[in-house]
Amino acid sequence: MNEAQASDTLAFGTAIAGRLETLGTISDEPDRLTRLYLGPAHRRAADLVAEWMRAAGMTAHIDAAGNVVGRYDAAESGARTLILGSHIDTVRDAGRFDGALGVAVAIEVVRAAHAAGKRFPFAVEVIAFGDEEGVRFASTLGGSKARAGRFDMKILDEVDDDGVSRRQALQAFGCDPSRLAEMPSAPADAFGYVEVHIEQGPVLEREGLPVGIVTAIAGVTRGLVEVDGVAGHAGTVPMAMRRDALAAAAEMLIAVEARARTRPELVATVGKIDVPGAATNTIPGRVRFTLDVRSPSDEERRSAVADIRQALAAVAQRRGVSAQLSLGHEASAVLCDERLSDRLARAVAASGMTPRRLPSGAGHDAMAFAGLIPFAMLFVRCRGGVSHNPAEYASPADIDVAARVLSLFLDEARSQ
Amino acid sequence: MNEAQASDTLAFGTAIAGRLETLGTISDEPDRLTRLYLGPAHRRAADLVAEWMRAAGMTAHIDAAGNVVGRYDAAESGARTLILGSHIDTVRDAGRFDGALGVAVAIEVVRAAHAAGKRFPFAVEVIAFGDEEGVRFASTLGGSKARAGRFDMKILDEVDDDGVSRRQALQAFGCDPSRLAEMPSAPADAFGYVEVHIEQGPVLEREGLPVGIVTAIAGVTRGLVEVDGVAGHAGTVPMAMRRDALAAAAEMLIAVEARARTRPELVATVGKIDVPGAATNTIPGRVRFTLDVRSPSDEERRSAVADIRQALAAVAQRRGVSAQLSLGHEASAVLCDERLSDRLARAVAASGMTPRRLPSGAGHDAMAFAGLIPFAMLFVRCRGGVSHNPAEYASPADIDVAARVLSLFLDEARSQ
Repeated sequence: MNEAQASDTLAFGTAIAGRLETLGTISDEPDRLTRLYLGPAHRRAADLVAEWMRAAGMTAHIDAAGNVVGRYDAAESGARTLILGSHIDTVRDAGRFDGALGVAVAIEVVRAAHAAGKRFPFAVEVIAFGDEEGVRFASTLGGSKARAGRFDMKILDEVDDDGVSRRQALQAFGCDPSRLAEMPSAPADAFGYVEVHIEQGPVLEREGLPVGIVTAIAGVTRGLVEVDGVAGHAGTVPMAMRRDALAAAAEMLIAVEARARTRPELVATVGKIDVPGAATNTIPGRVRFTLDVRSPSDEERRSAVADIRQALAAVAQRRGVSAQLSLGHEASAVLCDERLSDRLARAVAASGMTPRRLPSGAGHDAMAFAGLIPFAMLFVRCRGGVSHNPAEYASPADIDVAARVLSLFLDEARSQ
Repeated sequence: MNEAQASDTLAFGTAIAGRLETLGTISDEPDRLTRLYLGPAHRRAADLVAEWMRAAGMTAHIDAAGNVVGRYDAAESGARTLILGSHIDTVRDAGRFDGALGVAVAIEVVRAAHAAGKRFPFAVEVIAFGDEEGVRFASTLGGSKARAGRFDMKILDEVDDDGVSRRQALQAFGCDPSRLAEMPSAPADAFGYVEVHIEQGPVLEREGLPVGIVTAIAGVTRGLVEVDGVAGHAGTVPMAMRRDALAAAAEMLIAVEARARTRPELVATVGKIDVPGAATNTIPGRVRFTLDVRSPSDEERRSAVADIRQALAAVAQRRGVSAQLSLGHEASAVLCDERLSDRLARAVAASGMTPRRLPSGAGHDAMAFAGLIPFAMLFVRCRGGVSHNPAEYASPADIDVAARVLSLFLDEARSQ
């Protein structure tokens, strides 16, 4: 790397890290970062982002869902549009990279093109979505779904913890909720959506790679398992006569883990376990635990859930307890577009790095466009795989790589 | 069995079951049986038991700890004393057999002897202890320890949930707490203590036996295990990169159970498990669970705890998590007296039944006399092994067997 390249690196990485630092100070709480959808911090952040967009050569406005939409016109009128985006709402006590990174990278890349007097053969729309985390109201992706013309007007009645409805919150934000119904079913002229996001997992770090190309957003099956055994006194029931619901559950957990380990991109998690009426000196008679199974392949996920159901039944039968698996939320996997992903991969390779492909186990705004607009995602390595936590961190050097890859991608992208 | 024997059976069993039914109606709560130490129901129960004792030919009084003490004099003055007893306090929402059974059996057996004009070559003291369950105040066995001259005056300052001290509760009951310090270190003339109690476990039922002879009251080690792994997003961390504290804990639970299964009278129980900050979509980073290990052999128990500690460490190391076992309450096993137990066994055999020996995994008033007076216990089969529950049940037929065994035992007992 020569001097010019090194200073180039510094340019993107430093500028974007600076923007993230500024955005990270805009919070609803004094000592930690919490920027809930349509709250006062979201309002200030949206105004700042709109200002950044304008300074980067874009026109900018806030739409009926509270999304900030910037537009960088094409070289010629009548051209199609490429959408770049991510979100600027956060979880409570958040890190400053989740969501904001993708917005800041997009703005910085457009700013650099504008500064160089460059126009693309397509318009670039940069969107800072407002409702990705689903923290304030019950449903999620309200911003990106509205942008995709898929907003469900029924959710306007959802209320937050203070009893404020989504409709009222939109009005207070300066939006007209009635216009949500009129939003077009995906921008007719859009030919792609590309999102840069921190990985929120440890794979890129483990492999020493700054970025990766997402193959699919994993589908998920959630469930609740109830195990019923026989409670008893911890001192008076010999081991051979027990029907201990917790010991049975422990064996079931091991079976869940073992099944998930059979496939590299399949994961299964038991996050919560509860023994109602538990006491140190009581053999548990009932246990409940949650199940979360994900895979980028729906077939693989369904097969795993079926096998897990069988394994639970087998453990239950052997131990003389009963086990009931009730399935809850289920979402299909969403595939990233091969053509866009291949172009991203070529940009990664052209930047001298291995174009590692990996699935996303978490959901993203990109899902809102599934089936409407082809989309692709670029993951950025994050330290320790940590996210949704103030310790969340992506280095300026890795951010710089992501920005250069996106910049290269724009240079090579074609709308046909 | 001829007519006379059948009517004899009916006599003991029916009379005792009737007494238990009456006692079972004396409660601090209208719709369930709750008779806490020194509460209003305990007061009424103590008065009733004292009345029963007098009607059975005994003198009776309530001592400084609230125990009801009945005395049936020996055939000759200067003879030694055999103590029979159990407790009349209960847990909340109790069954009517735990404790009360042993008191009612003792009274009925003495009543029958008195009705037959029979005196023994030793005095019989029947005690209805008042503080076995340890529900109202922090410490337990306050009644029997006082009777053994082992009352710890410091516990007079313990307070119940309403802020009433043990001292105040004793005074309200009509007792003089200052006299507790003067109680003799075990009745000097006592040569034995015998307690009849429901098994509170399923062993006798499984083996089709109405009664059993207790070998020892198991010792216990309690502990808390803290497992620290690494929390993560349920979707983004591949199985091979997880350090899931709950999956590790599950494997540890299986190891605890496996170790306990290696010895017939050893038991180990994990009764409580907790995942702080648990969420369905979060890989657990920290788990806490309790451990309760019991055995009639202290050596067997200590060896099991040491092996469990090693097994936890091995699982932790293999999975890249840490596990910390902190030991809490520990109590040594207390052996029943062989001579008294053999006499009980002969009475069981003489009644035509197999004298099954079994350990007690639960604590009993008898423990208060350990090292002071030889003691023995007779267990009575209870349905489903259920205790501390309104469904607790021992049949009149089994109770009758226990009473006849105790009666035979008294006929054959020698004070030397």
